[in-house]
Amino acid sequence: MSIELAVSTVIFALRPAVAGEEAVEQAVDRMVLSIPLVRRTREPFNGRWALPGGWADEAESLADTAARKLFETTELSPAYLEQLYAFGDLERSPFGRVVSVVYWALVREEQAQLAAEGVNVRWFAADDLPELAFDHNRIIEYALWRLRNKLEYSRIAHAFLGETFTLSELRQVHEVVLCKPLDPANFRRQVEASPGIVPTDQHVTGGRHRPPRLYRYDTSVELADNGPLANRT
Amino acid sequence: MSIELAVSTVIFALRPAVAGEEAVEQAVDRMVLSIPLVRRTREPFNGRWALPGGWADEAESLADTAARKLFETTELSPAYLEQLYAFGDLERSPFGRVVSVVYWALVREEQAQLAAEGVNVRWFAADDLPELAFDHNRIIEYALWRLRNKLEYSRIAHAFLGETFTLSELRQVHEVVLCKPLDPANFRRQVEASPGIVPTDQHVTGGRHRPPRLYRYDTSVELADNGPLANRT
Repeated sequence: MSIELAVSTVIFALRPAVAGEEAVEQAVDRMVLSIPLVRRTREPFNGRWALPGGWADEAESLADTAARKLFETTELSPAYLEQLYAFGDLERSPFGRVVSVVYWALVREEQAQLAAEGVNVRWFAADDLPELAFDHNRIIEYALWRLRNKLEYSRIAHAFLGETFTLSELRQVHEVVLCKPLDPANFRRQVEASPGIVPTDQHVTGGRHRPPRLYRYDTSVELADNGPLANRT
Repeated sequence: MSIELAVSTVIFALRPAVAGEEAVEQAVDRMVLSIPLVRRTREPFNGRWALPGGWADEAESLADTAARKLFETTELSPAYLEQLYAFGDLERSPFGRVVSVVYWALVREEQAQLAAEGVNVRWFAADDLPELAFDHNRIIEYALWRLRNKLEYSRIAHAFLGETFTLSELRQVHEVVLCKPLDPANFRRQVEASPGIVPTDQHVTGGRHRPPRLYRYDTSVELADNGPLANRT
């Protein structure tokens, strides 16, 4: 026997809450931080939901395998894919010893709408998951922690937004990811004190009397600074 | 053929600069950020220096393998061992396809002094390395970047210090890790504004007229917040 290597991906998107979802009650503006999962159709854990992924491929980089498996199951191609962690606990799989290198990705709502969905692929509210296959609940718990943490000190929220956005759109991303309402005045002060977010000369077009100003991220800063690993590996 | 899994560790310590080391010229207070390396005694890369490590063991967690290999080669048992990254580029080893899960650790000077040293184990200045085996130069470059980055937003410097320390000892850690002198007055202001570092009622003992005050880290904050993965995996 030996150690088998697998690759999985946690994909986050902000999606409109679906009526009937428990999380709808708490949903800020009826958007929910969501994750696509794939239903297993064989043992072990036949019938349970799991992260998209599969065995590592000898002829492919880990990130390429993550992206390919993701596309094969969900038809998603996220622009942003980062390594999260290698999970290697002894008892995490009844297959034998399996180490999973897990990636995480963020996609915009428009992209998320293009994702394949069907009887074996479905979006779940990230904070309201059933019992998943393997240790995938724990992996998602860690990914959620990283996402919420990183929101504080990087411009990662950008991955959920367009090139320009209003302060209330940015605040909504923070509210949905953090699962709590934020005070608009405090939020504005924090953003205005942050060097990474800059006001543009543009305003939202439309017939409003005082159209809100559009902001953008300072793109001289990396989306999430990965230093010497900025190129996909 | 298949994919082999290896585990390696980058260990950082602040050590007194050794006369003759090129880095001595720039050394702040003659301390140098240092890394122990192991000389390979077989092909590939026979004779080159490499990170301590070896093949993953089916019956052992990745972190346990990292710690064991580290002890076997250097006799070091760092209190702090964290996963850095899984390196999986296609061409990184002439062994065939090898994925290395790399850990990193920080040790105090007293511990570093206990490390085995000999013809096949030696400390190197982290910024003045020879050409290493495999992609280990690149791995260390990434570990250095993470260490320098993390110094800014976590209490990771603690791992290089005792329970209490003076502001000039803390500044020295920052200076040696960042490889640049820092203005003492600015540094004091930054530390005093930081909630994670708190003054104690104690001062350095000895015959000085105005003995400097001792500080400590607020231990209600994790050394480096790893969220749900705070326990070793």
